[in-house]
Amino acid sequence: MKLAIVGAGSVRYALQLLGDLAKIEELSKKGPVVSLMDISEERLEATEVLARRYMEELEVPVKIEATTSLEAALEGADYVINTALAYPRPEGGDGFAAYEKVVEVSEKHGYYRGIDAQEFNFVSTYTYLFCSYYDLTLALNVARTMEKYAPEGWILQTGNPVFEITQILTRESPVKAVGFCHGHGGVHEVCEQLGLPYEEVDWQVAGVNHGIWLNRFRHNGQDAYPLLDRWMEEKGSSWESRSPWDVQMSPAVMDMYRFYGMLPIGDTCRNGSWKYNYDLATKKRWYGKFGGIDNEVERPRFHDQLREGKRKMLELASEVASDPTIRLTERWPRLFSRDRLSGEQQILFIQALECGTPRRLVLNIPNRGVIEGIPDDVVVEIPARVDGEGLHPERIEPDLTPRIKKMYLWPRILRMEWALEAYRSRDIRVFEEILVRDPRTRSFEQVQAVLRDIWALPFHEELRQNFPMGGTT
Amino acid sequence: MKLAIVGAGSVRYALQLLGDLAKIEELSKKGPVVSLMDISEERLEATEVLARRYMEELEVPVKIEATTSLEAALEGADYVINTALAYPRPEGGDGFAAYEKVVEVSEKHGYYRGIDAQEFNFVSTYTYLFCSYYDLTLALNVARTMEKYAPEGWILQTGNPVFEITQILTRESPVKAVGFCHGHGGVHEVCEQLGLPYEEVDWQVAGVNHGIWLNRFRHNGQDAYPLLDRWMEEKGSSWESRSPWDVQMSPAVMDMYRFYGMLPIGDTCRNGSWKYNYDLATKKRWYGKFGGIDNEVERPRFHDQLREGKRKMLELASEVASDPTIRLTERWPRLFSRDRLSGEQQILFIQALECGTPRRLVLNIPNRGVIEGIPDDVVVEIPARVDGEGLHPERIEPDLTPRIKKMYLWPRILRMEWALEAYRSRDIRVFEEILVRDPRTRSFEQVQAVLRDIWALPFHEELRQNFPMGGTT
Repeated sequence: MKLAIVGAGSVRYALQLLGDLAKIEELSKKGPVVSLMDISEERLEATEVLARRYMEELEVPVKIEATTSLEAALEGADYVINTALAYPRPEGGDGFAAYEKVVEVSEKHGYYRGIDAQEFNFVSTYTYLFCSYYDLTLALNVARTMEKYAPEGWILQTGNPVFEITQILTRESPVKAVGFCHGHGGVHEVCEQLGLPYEEVDWQVAGVNHGIWLNRFRHNGQDAYPLLDRWMEEKGSSWESRSPWDVQMSPAVMDMYRFYGMLPIGDTCRNGSWKYNYDLATKKRWYGKFGGIDNEVERPRFHDQLREGKRKMLELASEVASDPTIRLTERWPRLFSRDRLSGEQQILFIQALECGTPRRLVLNIPNRGVIEGIPDDVVVEIPARVDGEGLHPERIEPDLTPRIKKMYLWPRILRMEWALEAYRSRDIRVFEEILVRDPRTRSFEQVQAVLRDIWALPFHEELRQNFPMGGTT
Repeated sequence: MKLAIVGAGSVRYALQLLGDLAKIEELSKKGPVVSLMDISEERLEATEVLARRYMEELEVPVKIEATTSLEAALEGADYVINTALAYPRPEGGDGFAAYEKVVEVSEKHGYYRGIDAQEFNFVSTYTYLFCSYYDLTLALNVARTMEKYAPEGWILQTGNPVFEITQILTRESPVKAVGFCHGHGGVHEVCEQLGLPYEEVDWQVAGVNHGIWLNRFRHNGQDAYPLLDRWMEEKGSSWESRSPWDVQMSPAVMDMYRFYGMLPIGDTCRNGSWKYNYDLATKKRWYGKFGGIDNEVERPRFHDQLREGKRKMLELASEVASDPTIRLTERWPRLFSRDRLSGEQQILFIQALECGTPRRLVLNIPNRGVIEGIPDDVVVEIPARVDGEGLHPERIEPDLTPRIKKMYLWPRILRMEWALEAYRSRDIRVFEEILVRDPRTRSFEQVQAVLRDIWALPFHEELRQNFPMGGTT
């Protein structure tokens, strides 16, 4: 079995996936080949060094390869986990620097948190608007390469925007593609807050990526939503956020629950409407004292943490490369755990298909009648049993509320369609029209000005070539 | 055959319908009964007096009845034309006065042309947002009354919003309902401007009410769109609007054509996005020197014209009542024509069903597969052949562009769904959430403030009762 990880220069995330693979014995004992791929040699090498040492320490027969060639990585692969972020880097900066620059330019024109922070998409370091051009192009490139070198393999799409990318892959390529996200993990937090043992809860979520809702929530054969109602009454007002990411039980989320009739889960909590997001003060009122992670204070701080983490990993790799006595699992047992799985689903998915061990996973796949009223070909996020025979989506019971479908899912689905229409047509007027409909827009001149200044950023050369200005009258 | 006209106090519109009925001999010779119904005795009496004299002069065996009782008007009716506007009147004012007051309050809170003037709905004397509460309630009342007194009859829905009302009727009542609009008449203007004889043109329109697009436009077996392209090049820049209503060939419409790939027709031209509608200067740039009819100068002027017209009709009726020698067809031959049909479709529809004379009409009926990608139960506006057997929708060929469906029709359909969700749930939070998504909204406090002030208007008592404030947290 060959697994390729595209974007393995993430270092930490790739090592998590590898750790899962090593710790699931029925998979690792098959002696799988893992091909690490990235365009950055430096970061790829760091992952490779740490991966080899980690696998040695776990004493598993996992073979590590590393390459900067997409073709070499994908050739004959049974599974390709695409974690790459394709957004270009500005001179001397990283992908976050590019994003921060775009936000800065956007805010100068009145677009708080950037033009990509939009209704139902405040998860805003990646985008469904113009930036997704790069991610869609990369993912399609992966798919085209697989059509040639690994036509029977699976793409496990992990890099964001998962919704848009999985959608374009399933529409444009015959290669099997499934989108992955861990957002449904929010159910754990709900159970914990309500004092319900997670294992005893009968739950189901459904929707689209970063837009999923707890349609089923039962305990001991009883509807458990009344417990949430009681929690809101008794404890809701004294809830406080413990970290910028801790928003699952926030006032915004309880407000969404009261309006939509079901609880939003995971990243969905960050994707309400502008009601919760006009500015930092509004965000703090609705998401707790940090105002969530999607704001001008916490987001840059998080980027710095990630940069610092990446720097440390590169240092560590360099140390490990020159000192064969370092034991990763002893010095950093959290990061290089011997037994704990990461909580990510990709390796469990592979285990289920390869070994036939059934797994219940939450996956992004074409709807095909599972959620009533959503077109068959639209990619939805739903629970499915995966086993040696393939994917078996669960029946969604009870159905999502009409309000969730008509006022949340459909508008979000349309934004996906608009992004794909922009991508397909290479027509900058689609972006203009999307921004005309944005609550932050005051005039068409504002739309033209913000796009002009974003297009002019030095690292957007490919964007300028693909979406020429002046398509309007 | 019995025809009821609900809202016959419109006077002029009711007389137009009656004129059509009288002039189509195969219908009028059957001796139909026309029941004029309105809640205003004064205006109803005016219509009745003028209708009787008009029918006398045309020497047709059409029997005129008048009643303020909905039950009496509808009992045993084969056809009910619902033209009523149900919006309440402020003390001492008319329906326009109420509308103008709401616009005034809205504009004070930053909602130019009123909170109901929204994306794809600038046709703004009627509404799909909160005001449609009254129109939906009246139309459902008509349907419920027919279920009891005329279960086999047809509702010919004419009062706006035609889309929302026809939609709720077809979803909520077993009574047969069809929506009527004359907006497709814009095809005449297109043909005239391009120098094409209308009768020689093979055209088709499709979409939703006030959102229809010229999907087929052929002349002599050839695509006629290149003629429009040439017109734009040669004459587009010298086009000027001859009246506030004359916008079919305006720059906004040509811009929509270039973006969406097909030409919007009729009232659709008034329903672009905010790009063309931010303020009067923007409207003038896109719609010609009057800035169209949907603005702060032309709309009140139009209301005054309508008021003056209504006043004159009431005077005329009073004169006619006291002078049996007045010949309407001689003194006002345009208004009381002997031979010219009005251009409205309702009586042609009745003729086709009653007499079997086939008619090609553009009707609002459930989609049922006609436009691909639009749900079966959504009411669309499409051409259909009507004859003694019933309605036969035309096959839409060529299909509407994906951009029209995804970026225009679907967003408009969702706004219909939101209006119906508000109506169904009687939940003011739905209005709040609609306004949160409005490009004119800057904060949730603004939303709450504008609704509070609109709700507080004296003539909105029923609205206040049905949508209690304070549903939010």
